[in-house]
Amino acid sequence: MLKHSDELDKAFHALADATRRGILERLSQGPASVSELARPYRSTLAAIHQHVQVLEASGLIVTEKMGRTRTCRISADAVARAEQWLSERRQLWEHRFDLLGKLVEDKGSPSRHLRKGKKKT
Amino acid sequence: MLKHSDELDKAFHALADATRRGILERLSQGPASVSELARPYRSTLAAIHQHVQVLEASGLIVTEKMGRTRTCRISADAVARAEQWLSERRQLWEHRFDLLGKLVEDKGSPSRHLRKGKKKT
Repeated sequence: MLKHSDELDKAFHALADATRRGILERLSQGPASVSELARPYRSTLAAIHQHVQVLEASGLIVTEKMGRTRTCRISADAVARAEQWLSERRQLWEHRFDLLGKLVEDKGSPSRHLRKGKKKT
Repeated sequence: MLKHSDELDKAFHALADATRRGILERLSQGPASVSELARPYRSTLAAIHQHVQVLEASGLIVTEKMGRTRTCRISADAVARAEQWLSERRQLWEHRFDLLGKLVEDKGSPSRHLRKGKKKT
């Protein structure tokens, strides 16, 4: 559980940066080298490399060095884990919201009004 | 676009902390006051209040003060936005993966082997 929590800490921390999200957007189209990832940015290659390291430590991407080139690719499993955490929270809340809506509907139904009316008399 | 990116920065930053995720887990069951949210933690009420402020600034929760009590509730829309960003990245990657799988399958199909065989003779 703690390990899982630590993984989520790292994943969400990695996602809290526009450049790192940009790198993930690029990688969702297919694997790329660090130089290719750096191309759209004005940052230095070293800065992009640091972002890649944060993403790799979070598990959201995996990298592989072949010769002098480090190729990066997205880890769909890790992205899915972060996504699932959010999805579960949202679904629980929406389920509760639906139940509340139903309760309000039931309270507003004619039979309920009738019961209320009867009590008044 | 920049506004949206800033929102995502804040949302993912807020999510990168186990206590704040714990607060969101509690709120997915229904609204709660800051004191109620603090109950499972050893932290001070002030520390929990700070976490609540980070969550509120991120848009993931909304709070309302009535008298001396601040009631917090989850914002399903903001949670859904962060979830959607992840979902889109994962789906793009998986789609690409499926296409690659199909390509490999096609390359390994009998007709292909036949063509290869013909070339050899």
